Amino acid sequence: MLTVQKYGGSSVADAKCIKRVANIVADTYRNGSDVVVVLSAPGDMTDDLIERAEEILPGASRRELDMLLATGEQQSVALMAMALEALGLPAVSMTGWQAGIHTTSRFGDARIRNVTTEHVLAELERKRIVIVAGFQGITNSGEITTIGRGGSDTTAVALAASLHADLCQIYKDVEGVYTANPRIVPEAKKLDEITYDEMLELASMGAEVLHNRAVEMARKYGVKLEVRSSFVSKPGTIVKEKTKMEETKISGIAKDSNIARIALVGLRDEPGVAFKVFRLMAARKINVDIILQSIGRENSKDISFTVAKSDLKAAEAALLDEREIIGFDKLDVSNTLCKVSIVGAGMINSSGVAAAMFEALFDVAVNIHMISTSEIKVSVLIDDVNADVAVRAIHKKFFGE
Amino acid sequence: MLTVQKYGGSSVADAKCIKRVANIVADTYRNGSDVVVVLSAPGDMTDDLIERAEEILPGASRRELDMLLATGEQQSVALMAMALEALGLPAVSMTGWQAGIHTTSRFGDARIRNVTTEHVLAELERKRIVIVAGFQGITNSGEITTIGRGGSDTTAVALAASLHADLCQIYKDVEGVYTANPRIVPEAKKLDEITYDEMLELASMGAEVLHNRAVEMARKYGVKLEVRSSFVSKPGTIVKEKTKMEETKISGIAKDSNIARIALVGLRDEPGVAFKVFRLMAARKINVDIILQSIGRENSKDISFTVAKSDLKAAEAALLDEREIIGFDKLDVSNTLCKVSIVGAGMINSSGVAAAMFEALFDVAVNIHMISTSEIKVSVLIDDVNADVAVRAIHKKFFGE
Repeated sequence: MLTVQKYGGSSVADAKCIKRVANIVADTYRNGSDVVVVLSAPGDMTDDLIERAEEILPGASRRELDMLLATGEQQSVALMAMALEALGLPAVSMTGWQAGIHTTSRFGDARIRNVTTEHVLAELERKRIVIVAGFQGITNSGEITTIGRGGSDTTAVALAASLHADLCQIYKDVEGVYTANPRIVPEAKKLDEITYDEMLELASMGAEVLHNRAVEMARKYGVKLEVRSSFVSKPGTIVKEKTKMEETKISGIAKDSNIARIALVGLRDEPGVAFKVFRLMAARKINVDIILQSIGRENSKDISFTVAKSDLKAAEAALLDEREIIGFDKLDVSNTLCKVSIVGAGMINSSGVAAAMFEALFDVAVNIHMISTSEIKVSVLIDDVNADVAVRAIHKKFFGE
Repeated sequence: MLTVQKYGGSSVADAKCIKRVANIVADTYRNGSDVVVVLSAPGDMTDDLIERAEEILPGASRRELDMLLATGEQQSVALMAMALEALGLPAVSMTGWQAGIHTTSRFGDARIRNVTTEHVLAELERKRIVIVAGFQGITNSGEITTIGRGGSDTTAVALAASLHADLCQIYKDVEGVYTANPRIVPEAKKLDEITYDEMLELASMGAEVLHNRAVEMARKYGVKLEVRSSFVSKPGTIVKEKTKMEETKISGIAKDSNIARIALVGLRDEPGVAFKVFRLMAARKINVDIILQSIGRENSKDISFTVAKSDLKAAEAALLDEREIIGFDKLDVSNTLCKVSIVGAGMINSSGVAAAMFEALFDVAVNIHMISTSEIKVSVLIDDVNADVAVRAIHKKFFGE
């Protein structure tokens, strides 16, 4: 039995937190499992280091920023090894490179290429708990990299995949994945199981429980994930390929407020117009989420799409820059919208799920601005102010009181 | 032309300090020299990290402590690379292992075994300034080590030796090596040159300008050192094998207050007595400095020796523990003494140097408790309260007003 456990920055913020986590690790080890622990940098350390770099040179080279940031996780793992030592357990800490995490050389956002497990396996063989610095790796030429957002989750999954671990536990300050955000919907339920696909849709909908990169890698390599709490000793939510058949057709409801809508009105109704618009967005490195195209008046068409709120200004400027090339009558933007989505593998084979969602919104008089659907999700764009009312209404419709 | 420059922790304590140092490095580079920079951890970071480790486990494994501490210098080098980037100069930072600093596996106090220079040379070839984390290295099995006291100075000298640098500059908050401590003797002069041996004697006498390990390595590999100020742009003191013939026979005067004297009175006058005493001190890991043995009364002898003040209690306890084995009448200790030394390669071939020193002390009525001499130094033990008067008197005798 081999378990990989990942703990985030708040779990290693100070000596007290570190000791608490060490006790969870110790329990797992004493119950007979080999354990590999992956840690993030302590608390706000990454932000503090970025601030110190900014003081010297805003926008410094990513290579040097990675060199700087990688020290955070290195401190976490050393301190955790000491905390386990204090409990009388054999432990050894490793940086990303020592644990064989090889990445591409895209500093700040590197991808894991492969994991050479010899070093970790040798230490597990000696019955040591191996503590690995998350979020970091090494290039073929020996440079230290960081692997971007969701990095430590991804490190944990990559190690679990390479080591053929039985389970990869991601410890959070929540007890698992819920049918909706419990802060909005008090009666939200913890899910026992969820599929990778559902988890991916929920994550991209703003339910920030697991990062998509980590889930995608888990799906690719069939790594069984468990999202669970580091504060409460209870089973969490298992993420795997197929879940047991369940009563409900949907797994969860998510809300994403980090969204802005751009509408281009009066585009020429000719081939290549959409291509021009989204090639431009890609060139400016602006991620586009929902895209809707509708027929406009008199040989014209309208295109609406959503971007992250932080990208709105840049997107608007880009479109105005190339207004003549693209050709449109009017540019309309809104950043007081919100995306609410329902996700569930069950809805593929079930009609009426979308209709039930729209009915719930009608019941509470919430107007829908845009609709987008995929095989396992339905998303609507509504006014930001209605978001919580909408989520509660939808939850009630699908899960009852 | 290749210059290795080393800056200590106070020089990289914050953004302002880092930018100041970056300007010195930039000047050297712009004047046409290749530059390798070695840095310590920022300000109090090492102490802070040790404190955090103590919170978790006092006396934690040195392996994990090294893992933790090595992050300090890594942060310094990354930030310095950014500061040079801000000045428009090409720079690249390296950890100890990236710079090829291979050490023994004695964690916390490892010795440098060899330096593999390929990586550093390749970057110098590309005309980059290479910034190396001092105080750290890597074992043959890929473990991160720290190399103990004086570590960053030693890293700088080891790199200078391996890279055949023309000069290894150690930047300090003083302008160089002085004939005496300027805080005690205002008219003390900065030396233009000093030999390795003189530097070694001065350092061990408490003139904490350079650590002996670094000077010894410099002597062994013929690395030309310069001790100079990072605050004033002036030539410092060159440390090398042979200096120009100088008027004065001595190079400097040093005072060491961290000293306590132990006298064992009435030891049996038989072989092996001194051996028993100093084997005991070695077993308790107590370093002994000056040793004097004199004939006592009636078939007995007396042995006096000095230890660091912090070791006095332990030394006393050890001797009392083994009083019967060693056999002595009386144990007398004093920690109100001070050692004052004169150092100079010139005194080997010159008579009367010691006499002149004693005369200077007689002139100001300072009583001498012990005397110890070597080829290039004379040390006396005097009462602590007389130390500064003595240093000034000796300085006046040898260097004039």
